[in-house]
Amino acid sequence: MSNVLIVHAHSEAQSLTSSLKNLAVETLTAQGHQVEVSDLYAMHWKAVADAADFPTRKNADRLHYASESGNAFATGTQPADVVAEQQKLLWADAVILTFPLWWYSAPAILKGWVERVYALGFAYGVGQHGGERWGDRFGEGTLAGRRAMVVVNIGGREPHYSERGVNGRLDEILWPIQHGQLFYPGMAVMEPFPVYQSDRMSKERWLEVAAAFKVRMENLFTDTPIPYRTQNGGHYDGQQVLKPGLGGDETGVRIHLVQPGDPNEDLGASQTDTAEVASYI
Amino acid sequence: MSNVLIVHAHSEAQSLTSSLKNLAVETLTAQGHQVEVSDLYAMHWKAVADAADFPTRKNADRLHYASESGNAFATGTQPADVVAEQQKLLWADAVILTFPLWWYSAPAILKGWVERVYALGFAYGVGQHGGERWGDRFGEGTLAGRRAMVVVNIGGREPHYSERGVNGRLDEILWPIQHGQLFYPGMAVMEPFPVYQSDRMSKERWLEVAAAFKVRMENLFTDTPIPYRTQNGGHYDGQQVLKPGLGGDETGVRIHLVQPGDPNEDLGASQTDTAEVASYI
Repeated sequence: MSNVLIVHAHSEAQSLTSSLKNLAVETLTAQGHQVEVSDLYAMHWKAVADAADFPTRKNADRLHYASESGNAFATGTQPADVVAEQQKLLWADAVILTFPLWWYSAPAILKGWVERVYALGFAYGVGQHGGERWGDRFGEGTLAGRRAMVVVNIGGREPHYSERGVNGRLDEILWPIQHGQLFYPGMAVMEPFPVYQSDRMSKERWLEVAAAFKVRMENLFTDTPIPYRTQNGGHYDGQQVLKPGLGGDETGVRIHLVQPGDPNEDLGASQTDTAEVASYI
Repeated sequence: MSNVLIVHAHSEAQSLTSSLKNLAVETLTAQGHQVEVSDLYAMHWKAVADAADFPTRKNADRLHYASESGNAFATGTQPADVVAEQQKLLWADAVILTFPLWWYSAPAILKGWVERVYALGFAYGVGQHGGERWGDRFGEGTLAGRRAMVVVNIGGREPHYSERGVNGRLDEILWPIQHGQLFYPGMAVMEPFPVYQSDRMSKERWLEVAAAFKVRMENLFTDTPIPYRTQNGGHYDGQQVLKPGLGGDETGVRIHLVQPGDPNEDLGASQTDTAEVASYI
């Protein structure tokens, strides 16, 4: 049995987002998993990354947030709420984000969770930097070995988010979150679970949605993740540009998915013995 | 001479982001424009959209943020800070967002500005809804006739954000902001001004960056905007899907850019006399 962290960003208990969160807790618990919920609104999560996060400053004259977060992480002076979330992430085998899509991205309170919890040294600036190696990120890093999944409620209709829909494809809209915030620190990202027209949910449709979601929760640890290419697996060159011949049949961000016929990735390939770790700070 | 609103999301006066904001103010003022700055950190902008925004509720039992924002907008009971920002947007001929790219999107405080200021009836739910018409959005709407521009500082290197770079292309990463938050309520979006490796800025490079930025500010009202397709100009079908034959040479979100040879857009084409305005609420 495994540990699951749900990071929940909706203030209304009767919302569809909260109903899905509850169903996730129920389903996963019934399977024997341990589930922890970070209910950001209920916790009054501090959304804004600012100087108040660092009572003990490395540089009191000028706030460089990344630098101070790295210092606080290294010296054990991080805010208690940040430490608690980092501990939950380390404890978890899977992380589920439940939120409504607001203006084509996550609510500010969830974005602020990422900004404050993802300290330098914890979620980035991890591993060897130097030469052509840009650290352990995109498939490697502190949170490697974990799964992540986006559960997102969307007011608009599905065709508007389709291959040629006016909003852009959902995988393009979620790219900064799924690839940039979940895959970056090492998590394997599952296909998202979107619910369209979430403001117009009949009882009949809810039963359908709930049944489909239950299956996704039951298969959380067995479904196949989105095959994002790892940064250090040999598919990118020293400038982090996808090598020629790869991604040819895909368009947009989908070139970054491993495709049938691509060479196998080898995470040992780019490792060196160099101990040099360039500083981000 | 014109009016320019700068929405600024950096807490440190000595940061590169703040330096660019200051240079924008200087350059635009020297040209005779009126400039207003919403310095979100300095204003202690409330980043989280929650029940506290609606002391007078339409539905006290269950918070539906969009619904309450529409009600508050219609009944003149919005929070004073929200009204002030809406007034600045209406006053402005151009809107510039200055921020650091954090985790592949805008800082939470800026996202929270969008969420709270973009009330239903102000930035969405505008115009006719019903049948195959989905309101005035993407090139039309309350903020039509204005220009918008993203000025963004990025820690990483430019190749990482290039056509095949591991992070995805910058236009893909900025898509939710530029298309979904600026073009949506009607603004014409200028090409962004990104500064890469913003944490490692030598004096020499700053002078180059500043010179290039000054030119962009001087040409703010004469440069050509990104040619996003308008929603109602005839390029999308009734399901808001790009019509066959359009976008063929482009990939990903770039299919939504008008291309040479495309039929002209006609914003009168889809207008009807129907007064039906479907409610989002």
